[in-house]
Amino acid sequence: MYNIDLNSDLGESFGNYHLGMDEDVLQYVTSANIACGWHSGDPMVMDKTVKLAKENGVGVGAHPGFPDLLGFGRRNLSLSLPEAKNYMIYQIGALAAFAAAHGVKLQHVKAHGALYNMAAKDYKLALSLCEGIACVDPGLIVLGLANSEWIRAGRDVGLVVCSEIFADRAYQDDGSLVPRSQPGAVLHDKESVISRAIRMIQEHKVTTITGKEISIAPDSLCVHGDSPMAVAFVKNIRAAFEKNGITIQKVGDQRG
Amino acid sequence: MYNIDLNSDLGESFGNYHLGMDEDVLQYVTSANIACGWHSGDPMVMDKTVKLAKENGVGVGAHPGFPDLLGFGRRNLSLSLPEAKNYMIYQIGALAAFAAAHGVKLQHVKAHGALYNMAAKDYKLALSLCEGIACVDPGLIVLGLANSEWIRAGRDVGLVVCSEIFADRAYQDDGSLVPRSQPGAVLHDKESVISRAIRMIQEHKVTTITGKEISIAPDSLCVHGDSPMAVAFVKNIRAAFEKNGITIQKVGDQRG
Amino acid sequence: MYNIDLNSDLGESFGNYHLGMDEDVLQYVTSANIACGWHSGDPMVMDKTVKLAKENGVGVGAHPGFPDLLGFGRRNLSLSLPEAKNYMIYQIGALAAFAAAHGVKLQHVKAHGALYNMAAKDYKLALSLCEGIACVDPGLIVLGLANSEWIRAGRDVGLVVCSEIFADRAYQDDGSLVPRSQPGAVLHDKESVISRAIRMIQEHKVTTITGKEISIAPDSLCVHGDSPMAVAFVKNIRAAFEKNGITIQKVGDQRG
Amino acid sequence: MYNIDLNSDLGESFGNYHLGMDEDVLQYVTSANIACGWHSGDPMVMDKTVKLAKENGVGVGAHPGFPDLLGFGRRNLSLSLPEAKNYMIYQIGALAAFAAAHGVKLQHVKAHGALYNMAAKDYKLALSLCEGIACVDPGLIVLGLANSEWIRAGRDVGLVVCSEIFADRAYQDDGSLVPRSQPGAVLHDKESVISRAIRMIQEHKVTTITGKEISIAPDSLCVHGDSPMAVAFVKNIRAAFEKNGITIQKVGDQRG
Repeated sequence: MYNIDLNSDLGESFGNYHLGMDEDVLQYVTSANIACGWHSGDPMVMDKTVKLAKENGVGVGAHPGFPDLLGFGRRNLSLSLPEAKNYMIYQIGALAAFAAAHGVKLQHVKAHGALYNMAAKDYKLALSLCEGIACVDPGLIVLGLANSEWIRAGRDVGLVVCSEIFADRAYQDDGSLVPRSQPGAVLHDKESVISRAIRMIQEHKVTTITGKEISIAPDSLCVHGDSPMAVAFVKNIRAAFEKNGITIQKVGDQRG
Repeated sequence: MYNIDLNSDLGESFGNYHLGMDEDVLQYVTSANIACGWHSGDPMVMDKTVKLAKENGVGVGAHPGFPDLLGFGRRNLSLSLPEAKNYMIYQIGALAAFAAAHGVKLQHVKAHGALYNMAAKDYKLALSLCEGIACVDPGLIVLGLANSEWIRAGRDVGLVVCSEIFADRAYQDDGSLVPRSQPGAVLHDKESVISRAIRMIQEHKVTTITGKEISIAPDSLCVHGDSPMAVAFVKNIRAAFEKNGITIQKVGDQRG
Repeated sequence: MYNIDLNSDLGESFGNYHLGMDEDVLQYVTSANIACGWHSGDPMVMDKTVKLAKENGVGVGAHPGFPDLLGFGRRNLSLSLPEAKNYMIYQIGALAAFAAAHGVKLQHVKAHGALYNMAAKDYKLALSLCEGIACVDPGLIVLGLANSEWIRAGRDVGLVVCSEIFADRAYQDDGSLVPRSQPGAVLHDKESVISRAIRMIQEHKVTTITGKEISIAPDSLCVHGDSPMAVAFVKNIRAAFEKNGITIQKVGDQRG
Repeated sequence: MYNIDLNSDLGESFGNYHLGMDEDVLQYVTSANIACGWHSGDPMVMDKTVKLAKENGVGVGAHPGFPDLLGFGRRNLSLSLPEAKNYMIYQIGALAAFAAAHGVKLQHVKAHGALYNMAAKDYKLALSLCEGIACVDPGLIVLGLANSEWIRAGRDVGLVVCSEIFADRAYQDDGSLVPRSQPGAVLHDKESVISRAIRMIQEHKVTTITGKEISIAPDSLCVHGDSPMAVAFVKNIRAAFEKNGITIQKVGDQRG
């Protein structure tokens, strides 16, 4: 009996600018990481995305990022620890209000972009961010990179954690992702990407870029929804999971 | 037996910029309208202001405004009704998260600046804003200008309302304030300002700029905290109220 | 001998968000109204758009708007007159620096969105905006709606003006456009749109929505480049103009 | 015969927020580094500050920073090199337009805050920034930390450079400043601060925090204007310079 959540970054449009195929991908995922208006998203987009997630039975999560719309939250910004904590509280609160407005409970929090990457490696930063999550609502699930400082910090502040894997990304021996700037970082053969994901879920093992086997215990798989091809892949991997006895279930229900 | 709430706009600093004498004025008021980061305020300021309000037993309220930091929320902006509603939800949620983080309940919502003025006169706008409040939390109190469309809309969506008066502002015959651009809009004699406020609270009457007597039923008095003189005045009016048998009590307790 | 400039709003992408088919439409127009980073556009986009305009021999113009990225500059904002003037100076200067960096001269200024519409009807606002243009560079051409207060103000501050027409929009008897919110505001038959434009250019006449004939003296035609269909239309109208003896020439060369 | 420029960071107010004693300090300095609206400043403030600088015969300079008003440009942000270059072009252009509007020529450019510190140590970043300066106007002077990568880059792109010193900051053996986070970073004895500055100007020598003597060749001294005490110190150091035969002269005139 294997369970896996499928999460995707959604609600990344802003004002007059449209991004992503949210309506489509929401039919296939179980958890939505919804932008909170700082690196992308805005109140109209948040409202619409929460509504769509609810209609599709998808878990609603906050996806806070740096206050850097111009850089889409993808540029490192040096925050103090109190700033990091309070920026989380603010963004989670904003999204939680839309969840309340639609009568759903906020399920999880996943950091975005450069904040995600920095918090995966910097325990102090991760701890401040997770303290922010915990003080808004101790029932929130911390979703993030398996084996990262972010997951460790989430656990240390007493929150339920949800480790995510990337099927199409190469791993290093320490369990971190090979940076996109390095050759071999992204895997392109779709069949092997799918079988690799199934192996991670069923055997808790992955082969790193150096050929070593390491342990990994996934609760969720991160998928993209920014192109028709990406949506088609989500559909395919979902079908492959079901054929292989892997139940797709939102993380809030796994932990419920 | 007379009760009155004293409310003040607080938490209007931003980043490196300091504004207001929040520490001082929080000793004398009972309700704080705290900026939510759009026209002023930021997550660090919101955190600090909610903490200070709690320490002083002051009711915590959201003070949402237009997305116009450059204009301090004082310039009219033409929003669609769904935008108005969603902008409220976002800002209330952000502040509510800081309230939650400090273990206090959000008490009320008061619109800021140009949004306050527009909503006082435009029922449709006020209704959308109040629908936003109600769908985040139907226990929130709508605080605003006595006899305004904002108060009417708050009542119409089923929320508890709190009518505020301004002791130092002249009133027009329809119960609205004389605009600051007109002569006689602001009253400067402190003694008469105080006795005028006491009369509004005890007799529910005020003399307009034309000399007419109109009815007014105040639940709260709006006071300023942006200068040592303003803070001294709050202290004085508080003392005068107590001497005249008027109990100063936060609106949440009046309505509890 | 008839001349006409073809102008289009370009450079409206922002950060990670892409908008418009600038590369395509720049092959067919003669003047580019380039967003200056307030309602859309950013320094990377401005750099790229100015470079492309230069490569295509297209006149580079500033397209300043309200400080409202969230509303794409399409929402009315009440500015003071000094604010209006200084907001123009700032945005024109920012774009002029990219023109300088690429060795081209800024040709013209056209206001964007709600600022365009407000300035077309409000002479005082238009005058402040045009004073802002003139004090940065008295050689700049004021481009805007034919018969508007904006054109009158541009002339009154001593600048060269360029009156633009819209081939696919209905006109009112006073020479203003029928607002998009009213039925009949947009004309959809492409053949009649083209012949209507040719008549405006050659006979200086247009039939209004009430059936009346009014005078109009166009220097430029505004075209869109936000869809493949829009780009195809620009190509067609260009061909029709050339067949009818209308020379397509950028306004800076007409006036040079 | 010794000359020194006195420069100060000015125009750092924003909207409703006031910062600095610009009117006072402008009477004593010779070069103004004026914020360009990204980390602080806005078009109204820029207009007023350029006007005041002109009235006081003070050289007008651009003081570009990171797009981080919330952090006052004091937090490191990881930009790509093209972003760095284009962010300079944008901000310099915006300020240059206000200089043009007041009939003065932009004299110099000095980076602000975290951008200043990063560019002082990172040659590639400094080079991109200085290329941005040069392509807007090759007559601009690059003002910044003596012995830094910023000064080296400015020289390498062919611009005139102006090395600034800090009288009240301790130096390390490599000519860089002791970070403010370290003990002894800021010198508090005013007499020794003044004599130290005089020695740097007349003997081109300074004693580092380790007691070593190093060479330094100052063209400008950076002074603060954010408090009455700071302004009084500028007045005092100016008087001390004059008594010691040091002529205070803006850098544009030194280099003219």
